[in-house]
Amino acid sequence: MDKLHSLYYFLDLAGTFAFAISGATAAKQRGLDLFGICAIAFIVACGGGIIRDLCVGAIPPAGLTNWKYLVVAIIAAGLTVGIFPIVQRLNRPVLLFDAVGLSLFAVTGAQKALAYGHNGQVAVLLGITTAVGGGVLRDVLLNRIPVILEKEIYASAALTGSLVVVLGNYLKWMPSDWVSIIALIICFTFRILALRYHWNLPASSPTSSTDKAEP
Amino acid sequence: MDKLHSLYYFLDLAGTFAFAISGATAAKQRGLDLFGICAIAFIVACGGGIIRDLCVGAIPPAGLTNWKYLVVAIIAAGLTVGIFPIVQRLNRPVLLFDAVGLSLFAVTGAQKALAYGHNGQVAVLLGITTAVGGGVLRDVLLNRIPVILEKEIYASAALTGSLVVVLGNYLKWMPSDWVSIIALIICFTFRILALRYHWNLPASSPTSSTDKAEP
Amino acid sequence: MDKLHSLYYFLDLAGTFAFAISGATAAKQRGLDLFGICAIAFIVACGGGIIRDLCVGAIPPAGLTNWKYLVVAIIAAGLTVGIFPIVQRLNRPVLLFDAVGLSLFAVTGAQKALAYGHNGQVAVLLGITTAVGGGVLRDVLLNRIPVILEKEIYASAALTGSLVVVLGNYLKWMPSDWVSIIALIICFTFRILALRYHWNLPASSPTSSTDKAEP
Repeated sequence: MDKLHSLYYFLDLAGTFAFAISGATAAKQRGLDLFGICAIAFIVACGGGIIRDLCVGAIPPAGLTNWKYLVVAIIAAGLTVGIFPIVQRLNRPVLLFDAVGLSLFAVTGAQKALAYGHNGQVAVLLGITTAVGGGVLRDVLLNRIPVILEKEIYASAALTGSLVVVLGNYLKWMPSDWVSIIALIICFTFRILALRYHWNLPASSPTSSTDKAEP
Repeated sequence: MDKLHSLYYFLDLAGTFAFAISGATAAKQRGLDLFGICAIAFIVACGGGIIRDLCVGAIPPAGLTNWKYLVVAIIAAGLTVGIFPIVQRLNRPVLLFDAVGLSLFAVTGAQKALAYGHNGQVAVLLGITTAVGGGVLRDVLLNRIPVILEKEIYASAALTGSLVVVLGNYLKWMPSDWVSIIALIICFTFRILALRYHWNLPASSPTSSTDKAEP
Repeated sequence: MDKLHSLYYFLDLAGTFAFAISGATAAKQRGLDLFGICAIAFIVACGGGIIRDLCVGAIPPAGLTNWKYLVVAIIAAGLTVGIFPIVQRLNRPVLLFDAVGLSLFAVTGAQKALAYGHNGQVAVLLGITTAVGGGVLRDVLLNRIPVILEKEIYASAALTGSLVVVLGNYLKWMPSDWVSIIALIICFTFRILALRYHWNLPASSPTSSTDKAEP
């Protein structure tokens, strides 16, 4: 079991790193300064988890107390600023680790909500929030419509992962650790297949003339 | 009293439904995918209440635990996607139920803050937040300035409703349930009259040359 | 010590006022209505502190319970609407009080996190959040990229102030009140010098062609 937790630990930091790289890259492309790049990197990496912790009552949020996430985010920001051309060429591994982060955050988010004694619906909703919240905050701060709401199977993969966790814990067919691993694999596979084959949910084309809706 | 609570229950779901329709419609107009439309519908319906619950210390927020809101939001999203032309023609009833939702959320938001032992100012501020928070989140996510900050008597109606609740509970002239009903009627009437006669608060025209202010 | 607390009290309200003026001015320039201007003024003045209070578990947030902040925000909004040309000419004193608010909010934010028993990293992160959170919310609501992420030594000054508070409280070389005063002076001086000499953190120019990043 110790090996499992070492693996978890590595995947958690790898996912955080990938999320932070995606934040730092987007911030750099928008011309933000050094502080802005670090801030967006940190927010993408920890924002979803902070919202989850506020909702389950885990005060203060782990993203604020744990120095490892902050250090990983700052390293990711530093690398992005220092060797931007190389980071840009790393697009493929970053997408891979991003899928790792997505899966892991969805699964651990749902598990944490269950561990705090909340019901299955809360666990699923907060699993998704943990996984995609940081990316949504990044896009809101960079003044664009969150990409995850527009295209690609991204949040849907997180939904699937969280759902497997909740079902697994209700059915009790196997220990909780195994449920997590299976949920992780399903979510990750789903996301990678969606990337590989450009799966999308159905979407309508925007109707630009009706830009301003009623309140 | 049982009939009153059945009425409450129906109005609550009707208001939630109207809020979700407004979110799903705006999301569809922006070309979001199916997940995005469901997410925005849910956020408009429950976002304001979730912020209120975080601020009064009601953990986990009712919007996350109660399956009825989630189901209503998904049904509203499904209808919007499935029969969009019909939903668009429903503009008038939707505006009506939206006014119901606004009034009900303002009143129940203020009542909940008082029930948790907070003072009148907190109750008024959180009454407004409950009523307009979801709509503000929708506009922030869809990358536009929140309409409620720009025009029409919308938040002001919510303010009036919350204020009546707080005053009523301080003066203790009548039972709390009666205060709620009166506040509800005042807020709803105010909003409907504003819609009917195009009442607006005074606003200055934007000065486009000074788009970027100092921090 | 009583004089010190009177000074604190005055500076706190002066900083709140400056923050509210900056919010009301930006809201007026965007053409928001009277409610919108009051709302943005209040959010700039109290938003950062409310996020901090949610994260440290101070429920309900002080910004919601304390009537003084609300009154100061409404007065600032009223002045901005009533005598806009004069307020605009007050740019210099407003920037000065804004620097006071920034320093004070960074220092008191960090102190409050420590007082609630959280660690140094939480204190630094929440000190920055208290100081710049309101301004970030303003820019998100007004649909632009937060200026503090783009240019000028602003958040960095808040970081410095919070860091001095945390170091001072760990080293225990002097009483906590003295630490606060020194942190306040350092942060304020840093900000004023940055304004005077146009200090900036390094930033890359935006790459407009890559506007839409991967999720």
